[in-house]
Amino acid sequence: MLKDDWFIEVFEKTASGLTFRVDEVLFSGESPFQRVAVIRNAFFGNVMLLDDLVMLTERDEFYYHDMLVHVPLMCVDEPRDVLIIGGGDGGSVREALKHPSVRRVVLCEIDQMVIDVSRRFFPSLAERLDDERVEICVGDGIRYVHEHPGEFDCVCIDSTDPIGPAVGLFTPEFYTDVKAALRAGGAMSAQTESPAWSLNAVRGIRDNIARAFEHPRLYLAPSPCYPSGSWSFALALKSDRDPACDFDVQRAAQISRHCRYYNPDIHRAAFVLPNFIRDALL
Amino acid sequence: MLKDDWFIEVFEKTASGLTFRVDEVLFSGESPFQRVAVIRNAFFGNVMLLDDLVMLTERDEFYYHDMLVHVPLMCVDEPRDVLIIGGGDGGSVREALKHPSVRRVVLCEIDQMVIDVSRRFFPSLAERLDDERVEICVGDGIRYVHEHPGEFDCVCIDSTDPIGPAVGLFTPEFYTDVKAALRAGGAMSAQTESPAWSLNAVRGIRDNIARAFEHPRLYLAPSPCYPSGSWSFALALKSDRDPACDFDVQRAAQISRHCRYYNPDIHRAAFVLPNFIRDALL
Repeated sequence: MLKDDWFIEVFEKTASGLTFRVDEVLFSGESPFQRVAVIRNAFFGNVMLLDDLVMLTERDEFYYHDMLVHVPLMCVDEPRDVLIIGGGDGGSVREALKHPSVRRVVLCEIDQMVIDVSRRFFPSLAERLDDERVEICVGDGIRYVHEHPGEFDCVCIDSTDPIGPAVGLFTPEFYTDVKAALRAGGAMSAQTESPAWSLNAVRGIRDNIARAFEHPRLYLAPSPCYPSGSWSFALALKSDRDPACDFDVQRAAQISRHCRYYNPDIHRAAFVLPNFIRDALL
Repeated sequence: MLKDDWFIEVFEKTASGLTFRVDEVLFSGESPFQRVAVIRNAFFGNVMLLDDLVMLTERDEFYYHDMLVHVPLMCVDEPRDVLIIGGGDGGSVREALKHPSVRRVVLCEIDQMVIDVSRRFFPSLAERLDDERVEICVGDGIRYVHEHPGEFDCVCIDSTDPIGPAVGLFTPEFYTDVKAALRAGGAMSAQTESPAWSLNAVRGIRDNIARAFEHPRLYLAPSPCYPSGSWSFALALKSDRDPACDFDVQRAAQISRHCRYYNPDIHRAAFVLPNFIRDALL
């Protein structure tokens, strides 16, 4: 909601919220899927809101995109084909293209308006959308995955919350199709909500992934503009490696030179869970 | 500020803030040092505000107290005497007493009202203040440290932000006195603000500590109700051990049975810094 030039994102469940001063409303529109808005804030830069929830800010999108993309890509040897589901802002595409072996990144985003708004107001995220290795598919990620078995080394599920248009991206059936879309040795990552404030939701998503993949793992990173400031991600592999430590450290160090958050030690540390999360996942 | 039954904590610098629904105002007072208030929120439980800043919530105080106290105590062999500066809520005292070797915990809090309010509204934090090993000293931590050289194995600086009454707890002179208050082999920890949104402040504090101690180290943990949700702590030792890995893992595992956040892997992982923090500290 907007109030006296402040945007307030209220999390009903927690009777709390985040608020940002709105220095300018840059865009406000309604797509067939959601309300899309862009506000400018002096500290955070441009801020994208979908259905009145903060999706990203220019200032701190790097935590989320580094971790959603580099962790799974480091769990695959020589990844070539990457699928991003959602992520119309382009941040995940930008990160995937930092891996020299990647020759094709498919961005499957359901909402053209998100892509258009990002090109216009978030150039630092959308900057690589015109790279010749990128294929943009505006449409339903569920259908796309179903129709492209065995084509990808890595699938990153860069979705909104499991309400509204994204709800189908959290079902066992979808994860089964993602597994089928992966080649042997492939990896899937997904954003899986706040472990601090939505631990039941995190566990539910993990359980759904476990219906398709053996031993999905959770990992953690800060995300200051999401509820609680802590975020979780799931990693599932079509191989039997240990994603927390079985990766090429030299390759990770090379990638991390182009990152503000990710590095090989962060990769390992992200899989360490505090007791209350570890115990909830037993 | 209070507005329509919502408390809004605004961080001027970031033009943003946190907001909590106020289901009841339980206490509101003015001490010689600060405004003290307690509100009740259905999700977070009781919330303590000092000068309109959230100090702690019943729901998530455990991240901060686990990390401020157990990390330094694990860097000392057989710690016996512990000094908590600030921390009148009692959470740090409660954690220190979990270590079986500890025989004395001095709580030096400048503001009697904080102690009284915690006893009344935060029983799960204040529960150990009447333990026979606890000595409560209402007074100035700067003077206390200066007057007690060589008495402690561990000093935890559980202060408010470096504005107002706590500003003297962030100076090189104070850290020099803390070092003198420690026995050989001792450890100091301190809360050192948000690395996400106040990285210059974090670096400034680290630099001040480095005027007294060789090689202070930063470590990180979430703290959902503080600005950005990410928090930093400094650790400084009067020994040459590596605080990230040179500790008794069995003893840490034993302590972690009584913790919701801390465990030996968390201890190690907390010292891993993302690139943007690591580079800012060079």
